[in-house]
Amino acid sequence: MTFHRPPDKEHIDNQMIKMEVNLDDMPGEWLGYVMDLLFAAGANDVYYTPIYMKKNRPGVLLQILCSVEAVADLKQILFRETTTLGVRYYPLSVHRLERRFELFQTPWGAVTVKYGLMNGKIVQRAPEYEDCRAIAEKHGISLKDVYASIWKSEKENE
Amino acid sequence: MTFHRPPDKEHIDNQMIKMEVNLDDMPGEWLGYVMDLLFAAGANDVYYTPIYMKKNRPGVLLQILCSVEAVADLKQILFRETTTLGVRYYPLSVHRLERRFELFQTPWGAVTVKYGLMNGKIVQRAPEYEDCRAIAEKHGISLKDVYASIWKSEKENE
Amino acid sequence: MTFHRPPDKEHIDNQMIKMEVNLDDMPGEWLGYVMDLLFAAGANDVYYTPIYMKKNRPGVLLQILCSVEAVADLKQILFRETTTLGVRYYPLSVHRLERRFELFQTPWGAVTVKYGLMNGKIVQRAPEYEDCRAIAEKHGISLKDVYASIWKSEKENE
Amino acid sequence: MTFHRPPDKEHIDNQMIKMEVNLDDMPGEWLGYVMDLLFAAGANDVYYTPIYMKKNRPGVLLQILCSVEAVADLKQILFRETTTLGVRYYPLSVHRLERRFELFQTPWGAVTVKYGLMNGKIVQRAPEYEDCRAIAEKHGISLKDVYASIWKSEKENE
Amino acid sequence: MTFHRPPDKEHIDNQMIKMEVNLDDMPGEWLGYVMDLLFAAGANDVYYTPIYMKKNRPGVLLQILCSVEAVADLKQILFRETTTLGVRYYPLSVHRLERRFELFQTPWGAVTVKYGLMNGKIVQRAPEYEDCRAIAEKHGISLKDVYASIWKSEKENE
Amino acid sequence: MTFHRPPDKEHIDNQMIKMEVNLDDMPGEWLGYVMDLLFAAGANDVYYTPIYMKKNRPGVLLQILCSVEAVADLKQILFRETTTLGVRYYPLSVHRLERRFELFQTPWGAVTVKYGLMNGKIVQRAPEYEDCRAIAEKHGISLKDVYASIWKSEKENE
Repeated sequence: MTFHRPPDKEHIDNQMIKMEVNLDDMPGEWLGYVMDLLFAAGANDVYYTPIYMKKNRPGVLLQILCSVEAVADLKQILFRETTTLGVRYYPLSVHRLERRFELFQTPWGAVTVKYGLMNGKIVQRAPEYEDCRAIAEKHGISLKDVYASIWKSEKENE
Repeated sequence: MTFHRPPDKEHIDNQMIKMEVNLDDMPGEWLGYVMDLLFAAGANDVYYTPIYMKKNRPGVLLQILCSVEAVADLKQILFRETTTLGVRYYPLSVHRLERRFELFQTPWGAVTVKYGLMNGKIVQRAPEYEDCRAIAEKHGISLKDVYASIWKSEKENE
Repeated sequence: MTFHRPPDKEHIDNQMIKMEVNLDDMPGEWLGYVMDLLFAAGANDVYYTPIYMKKNRPGVLLQILCSVEAVADLKQILFRETTTLGVRYYPLSVHRLERRFELFQTPWGAVTVKYGLMNGKIVQRAPEYEDCRAIAEKHGISLKDVYASIWKSEKENE
Repeated sequence: MTFHRPPDKEHIDNQMIKMEVNLDDMPGEWLGYVMDLLFAAGANDVYYTPIYMKKNRPGVLLQILCSVEAVADLKQILFRETTTLGVRYYPLSVHRLERRFELFQTPWGAVTVKYGLMNGKIVQRAPEYEDCRAIAEKHGISLKDVYASIWKSEKENE
Repeated sequence: MTFHRPPDKEHIDNQMIKMEVNLDDMPGEWLGYVMDLLFAAGANDVYYTPIYMKKNRPGVLLQILCSVEAVADLKQILFRETTTLGVRYYPLSVHRLERRFELFQTPWGAVTVKYGLMNGKIVQRAPEYEDCRAIAEKHGISLKDVYASIWKSEKENE
Repeated sequence: MTFHRPPDKEHIDNQMIKMEVNLDDMPGEWLGYVMDLLFAAGANDVYYTPIYMKKNRPGVLLQILCSVEAVADLKQILFRETTTLGVRYYPLSVHRLERRFELFQTPWGAVTVKYGLMNGKIVQRAPEYEDCRAIAEKHGISLKDVYASIWKSEKENE
C-alpha cells in the first residue's frame, strides 16, 4: 500500500519525484494560473526560477515536487497548459520531521501552530499563515504584529 | 543501438543526463560564447541560473541537458572553456510528446508550425521562431503580428 | 552644513544618490571584495541584481545608495576595482523613521534592539544581528532561538 | 485638478513616483500579503526583484509604481507591514497609450479585449486574463486554447 | 549641438535616460528579438531582470539606457514589439572615462584593446570580445587562453 | 574505505549528494549565517537561488553539495537553523580534475596558484583569491591588478 498523505511521524520518503520544464515561449501571466492547477492536482510544491536561455531569452524553469502517484496527472496538466514538448523528472528522497499541530488562543481568536520535531524534540514552530492573515485583515493589525503576539503566547504556554 | 536523435513518436527517454557547474570566477562575457559551443557539440538545452555563492559572490549555475552519448564531449568543453575544476551530473527521464511539422502559407511566405501530440491528440502548436523572425525583418512587421497571423491561418486550416 | 550621519529623528533626506554599474566582463569572485570596499568607503547600501545582457551574457547590476558627499570616493573605487567604463547615477529622496536603540538583558548577555518610530509610535523592532549571532556561536544555540527569546523578553519589558 | 485615474487618451504622465525598499530581515511569506495591501491602497504596480545583499544575504527589492497622491498611504503600509526603517523614491514620467475596451463573443461567453493605440493606430490587443481564466475553469479548457480562440475571433471581427 | 556619440574624453553626460517596462504577458522568445532591435535603434545598453509580479507571475523588467535623442525611436519599438501599454523613464547622469583603443599583435593576428583612463591614468584594459572570439573559433583555442595571451602581450608592450 | 577528502588525481566521485530546501518563511539575514555553518560542517558547496513560490512569495532555494558522509550533520543544521520541515536529496557523480598547487613570487610576496589538469594537461590556472585579496589590501593595489600581475608572472615561469 502506498501513502498518498505522508504519515506525521518523522520518516524518510523515497517515493518522491522532481519534475522540471524549461519555458521560453509562454507568457508569465499563464504561469500564475498553471501553478494553481498543479497544486490542486496534488503537487507538494511548485516554484519558478528565472533562467537565461539561448538567443537572449529570459525563461522560466518550472519545478514540481510530488509523489510517484501524482506524476501522471501533473504531466497531463503540464502538456495541456504549458507550451512544452517534454517533461523531465528524477527521483529523490525527503527526510520529513514529525509534525504536530496545536491551537493557541490569542486576543483575536484561535491560531494553529505547526511544530516540527527531530528525534522527538521540537525544532520548528510556525503559526499558520492563513490564520494570521485572517486576523490581520479582520482586526486591522499588521501581519508582523500578529506573528509577534503568537510567538509570545506560544512561549508562555510552554 | 542508441538513438542519437530521439524518434518523433511520443516516448519516454531514460538516457538523458543533466550536467551542472557552479561558476564564480569567470566573466559573463565568456559564458555567452560557451553556450554556443555547448549547443554546437550536441547539448539538448543549456541555460544559466543566477546563484548566491559564499563570500558575497554573485555566481552562475550552468546547466546542460544532454544524452548519455554527448556527456564526454560536453565535459571537454566545460573543462577547456570555463574555469571549473569539477563537473557534476545525474540521470533523468524525459517524457517527450510526438512531434509533427507542417508548412503554412502566409501572405509573406511559408512558415513551419511544430505540433506536439499527447496520446495522438494535438496539445501544442508553435510556429518556428526563426521563420517568423525572418518574415518580421524582411517585411518590417512586428514579430507579434507575424505570430498572430500564423495562429489565425493555422486555425482556419483545421 | 551637511550631515554625514543622518539625524535619528524621523525626516526626509533629499541628498541621497543611487549609483549603478552593469558588469558582464568581471568574475563574481571580485565582486564580493568590491562590496566590502564600498561599504568601508561610506556607502549606505550596496547590492547586486542578476541581469540578462546582450550576447547571452549573465551579468550583474551593482547598485549603491549613498549621500551626495560619498559619490566621488565611491566612483573612484568603482573605476579602480571593477571593469566598467561608466558609472551612472541619479538623485532620490529617503523617508527615514526615527531610530532608538535599547539594551535588553537575555540569559546569555545584553542585546541591542533597534526601534523604528513613525510619528512617535514604534512600528519596527529588530534585535541587532551581530549581537544575536555572537550569542548563537558562543552558546551553541540556534540563531532562530536567540531571536525568539529576545522577542519574548522585549515584549515582557513593555 | 489631478487625475486619480489616468485619462484613456494617449498621454505622458509626469506625476508618477517609483518607491523602493530593500529587505533582508523579513520572510517571503509576509511579502505576498504586503503586495495585496499595496495594490488595494492604490499602487499602479508592485513587484519584487531578488538581490544579493551584504553578509551573504539573499534579499528582496520591493518596487512600487504609483501616483504622487498615493505616496503617503503606501509609505504607511510599508512602515507598518515590512521591517524597513527607510523608504526611498524618485519621480518618473510614463508615456501611456490610448486604451479602448471591446467585448467579444466566444462560444463560451463574452470576453473583454483591451486595445492600446499609438497615434490612433492599434498596436496592442490583449484579452482580459480574468475573463479567460473564468472560461477555462468553467469549461475545462486549457487557458492557452481560450486565448487562441479569442485571438482568432477578434481577428475575424476586424 | 548635441553629441550623438559621446566624445572620447572623460566627461559627465547629463543627457542620458533610463527607460523601463514591466512585462508579464509576453513570451521570452520574443524578448531576445526585441533586444536586438533596441540595440540597432541606438540604445546604449539593454538588459532584463527577473521580477515577481502579482498573481504569481514570473515577469521581466526590460531596461534601456539611451540618450535623450534616442527616446522617441526606442519607444516606438517598445510599443510595436512588446505588449506594454506604458513606458516609464527618468533622466540620469553618466560619468564616462576617457577611452583609447590600441592594436596588439598576437601569434594569431591583431586584437584591439580598449583602455579606460581616469584623470589621464589607465584604470581599465579590455581586449575586444569579438576579436578574441574570432581567434578562438578560427584557431581552435579556448577563449580564456586567447584572453590570457593578450593580457600578457599587452603587459610586455608597456 | 571512503575518502573524506577526495584524492588530487583526476577521478569520478560517485559518493556525492545534493541536498535542497525551499524557504519562504525565514529572513535572508539568517541565511547568511546558515551558509557559514554549513561550510564549517563539511559542505563542499552551498548556494542560494531566488525562486517564485505560491501566494506571491519570493523564496530561496538552498542547495548543498556534499559527500555521503556529511549528510547527517548537514541535515541537523538545516533542521536546527532554518524553518524547514523537510530536506530532500539525491545522489550525483562528480568528475574532478587533477589538482596541483604552486607558489609564485610576486613583487608583493608569494601567491598560490591552483592548477586543474585534464588527462595530464593543464586546463585551469587560478591564483588563490585569499592570497590576492591580502596583497590588495596590504599594498593598496586594486584586486584586478594583483590578478593581472600574477597571470603575467605565471606565464613567464612556464
